[in-house]
Amino acid sequence: MKEKEFIKLISNTLKSDYIGDDCAYLKDLGIVISQDNLVEDVHFSMKFTDAYKLGYKSAMVNISDIAASGAEPKYLTIGLSLPNNIDSNFIENFYKGLKKAAKNMEIVGGDITGSDKIFVSITAVGVAEGRKISSRKNAKVGYKVIVSGEHGASAAGLKNLFEGKQNKFTDIHLMPEAQIDFSKNISQNIKTDYAMMDTSDGLMDALIQISEASDVMLDINFEKIPYDRDLEKYPDYKDLILYGGEDYQLVACVPKDFEVKNSYEIGSVVEGNGVQMNGQKILNAENKIYNHFKEQK
Amino acid sequence: MKEKEFIKLISNTLKSDYIGDDCAYLKDLGIVISQDNLVEDVHFSMKFTDAYKLGYKSAMVNISDIAASGAEPKYLTIGLSLPNNIDSNFIENFYKGLKKAAKNMEIVGGDITGSDKIFVSITAVGVAEGRKISSRKNAKVGYKVIVSGEHGASAAGLKNLFEGKQNKFTDIHLMPEAQIDFSKNISQNIKTDYAMMDTSDGLMDALIQISEASDVMLDINFEKIPYDRDLEKYPDYKDLILYGGEDYQLVACVPKDFEVKNSYEIGSVVEGNGVQMNGQKILNAENKIYNHFKEQK
Repeated sequence: MKEKEFIKLISNTLKSDYIGDDCAYLKDLGIVISQDNLVEDVHFSMKFTDAYKLGYKSAMVNISDIAASGAEPKYLTIGLSLPNNIDSNFIENFYKGLKKAAKNMEIVGGDITGSDKIFVSITAVGVAEGRKISSRKNAKVGYKVIVSGEHGASAAGLKNLFEGKQNKFTDIHLMPEAQIDFSKNISQNIKTDYAMMDTSDGLMDALIQISEASDVMLDINFEKIPYDRDLEKYPDYKDLILYGGEDYQLVACVPKDFEVKNSYEIGSVVEGNGVQMNGQKILNAENKIYNHFKEQK
Repeated sequence: MKEKEFIKLISNTLKSDYIGDDCAYLKDLGIVISQDNLVEDVHFSMKFTDAYKLGYKSAMVNISDIAASGAEPKYLTIGLSLPNNIDSNFIENFYKGLKKAAKNMEIVGGDITGSDKIFVSITAVGVAEGRKISSRKNAKVGYKVIVSGEHGASAAGLKNLFEGKQNKFTDIHLMPEAQIDFSKNISQNIKTDYAMMDTSDGLMDALIQISEASDVMLDINFEKIPYDRDLEKYPDYKDLILYGGEDYQLVACVPKDFEVKNSYEIGSVVEGNGVQMNGQKILNAENKIYNHFKEQK
């Protein structure tokens, strides 16, 4: 059973309207909230990262979810479970990394316990005031599809880490940057409903999620997707760009005439369903999309 | 290194005023927030519990933290990491248990991922409106010390589970009840600052934490602490009552003339430091207090 089927089951069990977007928008409190788990040897390996970078990325993953909602990232809480042999250095560096990533936020608490493997769960709270909050359900026919930046680098970085290399791609993989300015530019200025997601599970995954939730087709032009030309050295670079994940860029569907600074228009929202790339319908994308329940070797 | 030293280190690294209470009070948003990790074979064992009870208790542990702050428990998010072999039944029952515990709350999202062992991290949000929020720093000389109910049953239950028994104590251990009415009675009516904590890590631990944070002594009369008389069958029943933990009762220090329905007065706040029980100063309590970094066998 896959993550998405689990989420469907949870949604059915709870009969909740909140399950669906990465952040829950609690209108009565004027906040969005998001929680992510990072598990050693599933989401990260201490062979490739260190306490500082792990803390940094753990925060950034959640800040990215808040950015995807359009809200202002404001507070973090951290649940950290650690093996017995971890020392105070690890904890100090982990929290320094967290603090670096969460520069305009406050880290306000959490929990620390024992465990066999490192388990990090971070909750981020964003403030909705003065912002219009996104939903992946809000893509409308006639909207344009825009992204905040380059895709594929993080997946190439992970490949390189497995090969024992260090380069610009590995840096991007280990210390990504959430797109909070892109988010703010949209959510502070837009008047209409819009869709936005981060591309943590890959650009294609985000496009498919938006198309399904909004019941529209996203018509994408591959040539318009920005990427580092050095990726072309990899034979599967197109897959890295579309399915790689963990770039923590944002993809949004907004009205054609709504201008977003530093954005790249990669396609448009049309009638239909699913995603079409250069005129070709994308089928069986699930097999390529990164799935946490698949072993990652 | 122990949990409390870790928390001190984190607090120093972050230079944050928020670390200390189980809940962080975010005044600008009018909310309190709390996060707890529950790790398989550290905090629970699937030999003794099941998915429904685990879901129930995971929520209740956090609801208890919110109750300790005096806020109204309102929203939950859940980060759940599960081994590959877990089926949809487990997830359905886990969420049914969550829902049962969180009866007046909404479960609004979270994360689900893979892992070797079961990791549960729950974040609870409480609303401060119309309530006075507690702090363990707020015990004052002349206040009385009150508890919401009986102690020791949960620890006896855990003992029984290890011995393969099932009885009223094991039920209390597996499905505790957060003291939200006790919390509400205080926080909606009190005019002055007050201290309140849950007794998740044991009654003595809570008393010591309050005495340290408030720089006072708590003078306790053991005979006043309510407990199930069947506990007296256990030779170490006094330790179960004082150090056992996981009863999820509340202990509060409030003005002498402030009446709290269904509360038990167990002592008073006096000048000095630490805890005094029937005239005897409690020393080296750390060795008895449950510590997550100690192996539990």
